[in-house]
Amino acid sequence: MIERLCIIGVGLIGGSLARALREAGFCKEVVGSGRNPAHLQQAVELGVIDRFDTDPARAVAGADMVLVAVPLGAMESVFSAVHGHLADDAVLTDAGSAKGSVLEAAQRAFGVLPGNFVPGHPIAGTEQSGVSASFAGLYRDRRVILTPTEMTDPEATARVRAMWEAAGARVSEMTAVHHDAVLAATSHLPHVLAYTLVDSLARLGDHDEVFEYAAGGFRDFTRIASSDPVMWRDICLANGDAIELLIDRFIEDLRVLKGAVHVHDSDKLLAIFTSAKQARDRHIGK
Amino acid sequence: MIERLCIIGVGLIGGSLARALREAGFCKEVVGSGRNPAHLQQAVELGVIDRFDTDPARAVAGADMVLVAVPLGAMESVFSAVHGHLADDAVLTDAGSAKGSVLEAAQRAFGVLPGNFVPGHPIAGTEQSGVSASFAGLYRDRRVILTPTEMTDPEATARVRAMWEAAGARVSEMTAVHHDAVLAATSHLPHVLAYTLVDSLARLGDHDEVFEYAAGGFRDFTRIASSDPVMWRDICLANGDAIELLIDRFIEDLRVLKGAVHVHDSDKLLAIFTSAKQARDRHIGK
Repeated sequence: MIERLCIIGVGLIGGSLARALREAGFCKEVVGSGRNPAHLQQAVELGVIDRFDTDPARAVAGADMVLVAVPLGAMESVFSAVHGHLADDAVLTDAGSAKGSVLEAAQRAFGVLPGNFVPGHPIAGTEQSGVSASFAGLYRDRRVILTPTEMTDPEATARVRAMWEAAGARVSEMTAVHHDAVLAATSHLPHVLAYTLVDSLARLGDHDEVFEYAAGGFRDFTRIASSDPVMWRDICLANGDAIELLIDRFIEDLRVLKGAVHVHDSDKLLAIFTSAKQARDRHIGK
Repeated sequence: MIERLCIIGVGLIGGSLARALREAGFCKEVVGSGRNPAHLQQAVELGVIDRFDTDPARAVAGADMVLVAVPLGAMESVFSAVHGHLADDAVLTDAGSAKGSVLEAAQRAFGVLPGNFVPGHPIAGTEQSGVSASFAGLYRDRRVILTPTEMTDPEATARVRAMWEAAGARVSEMTAVHHDAVLAATSHLPHVLAYTLVDSLARLGDHDEVFEYAAGGFRDFTRIASSDPVMWRDICLANGDAIELLIDRFIEDLRVLKGAVHVHDSDKLLAIFTSAKQARDRHIGK
């Protein structure tokens, strides 16, 4: 149970958590913070937060749980702003899509990784963004990964876990390095491929015609290329090493496939496609 | 109006056309053909076809419209089988996803491209296959591309166009070469990328875990990797030149993006992602 939740960055992610915890009766008061007072006022009018303060240092006063749900590029400045202003019993967590870079930001801002800091990542979202897109069910049955450090107080981790579980999520723990490798494979690389494909086609001379003949498969395949470009720029900068590794690996695999196309290696093509279909059908379903 | 439609290959594509034309009252009788009598019997029981003959030469007798909807790799043998058995007023068309290879198959089978042959490609389908997945609405508002040759009788093209329009489709005409370039970009390359990604991840040591943390974006992105591997092997063999060209171009673009990640070129990353998002939002929508 949370007495006062402070959410810094009241968009789809932060707003949906507030809605879910209110609906679950898991939280008494929600204070918002962020740079844009108009957005925060909208969040109040939508009933997502009770009040707001654009100054993070004032917003966190007296909060026993603080979620930082700002773009990765803004983490460090938020950490610096709240440094020295958190309540003694406060737990600090975040919702960043890459965890190594958040740890580095916290290290720089606080000097040392605080024992009450529990890095986290809710694997949920839509192509929409902003508090107006937030909804209480966003985290229902979704995965949340926590990456506590050696410095993290287990009691703090338990409180963050309880919060996400109250929002309906399934919570796991792993190291930040492992998180960043897994997410590079299942999320960051696919986004990079989808963005690259659409940009590549958009630069073809007759691109209007190309898109005109795109069917449902193309629509699904490229949906993630409609995600927020700023967020994905930040993720690519924050998790660059893991992403570069996977791009290299992917290019190598693509070259193998191209070689099979070139020499008409029917068996090889069938083996790759069959392996992929079986893996997807088994693990992902329809 | 078609008196007797013969469909060789009664699966999702052929079966859905038969259903649509019956529903529209555009066709009096439907004769099926194919290798598997059990599937054809099922098509009769589903009301998709009236009767069948596993011998294509006998099945086409007296038909004024013949659709060949078999895998690309089987086109030539079907064309050879019906050669000399088509009625004088028959129009022959196909539903292959690549058109250059179908023209070559027809050239080899018939010796010369017949005037009554109208190559075609309905851009529709699901990850399902087989006649049990067929439905009358599959072609509603979908694109069908016809690629008549210099030898094609315009009257034959008009009859094939009228058939697809009766099924609810929007019909365009272009050359086979242009068709193959457009489809390589919007369909063949995306399938190759999705298959390669899933196969690549499935070969990671901890692939169960990787798939476990995949979210909705990954599900959409990889949906086309659940398509029929045999069909996609055939397409890669049939349209290899165009696909290889686009793989090369894609790898080049991916290298540029990787370079931007490597040197932390924030502006470049944002430019690529923004261009892609704008193109997709403008041309494809949600």
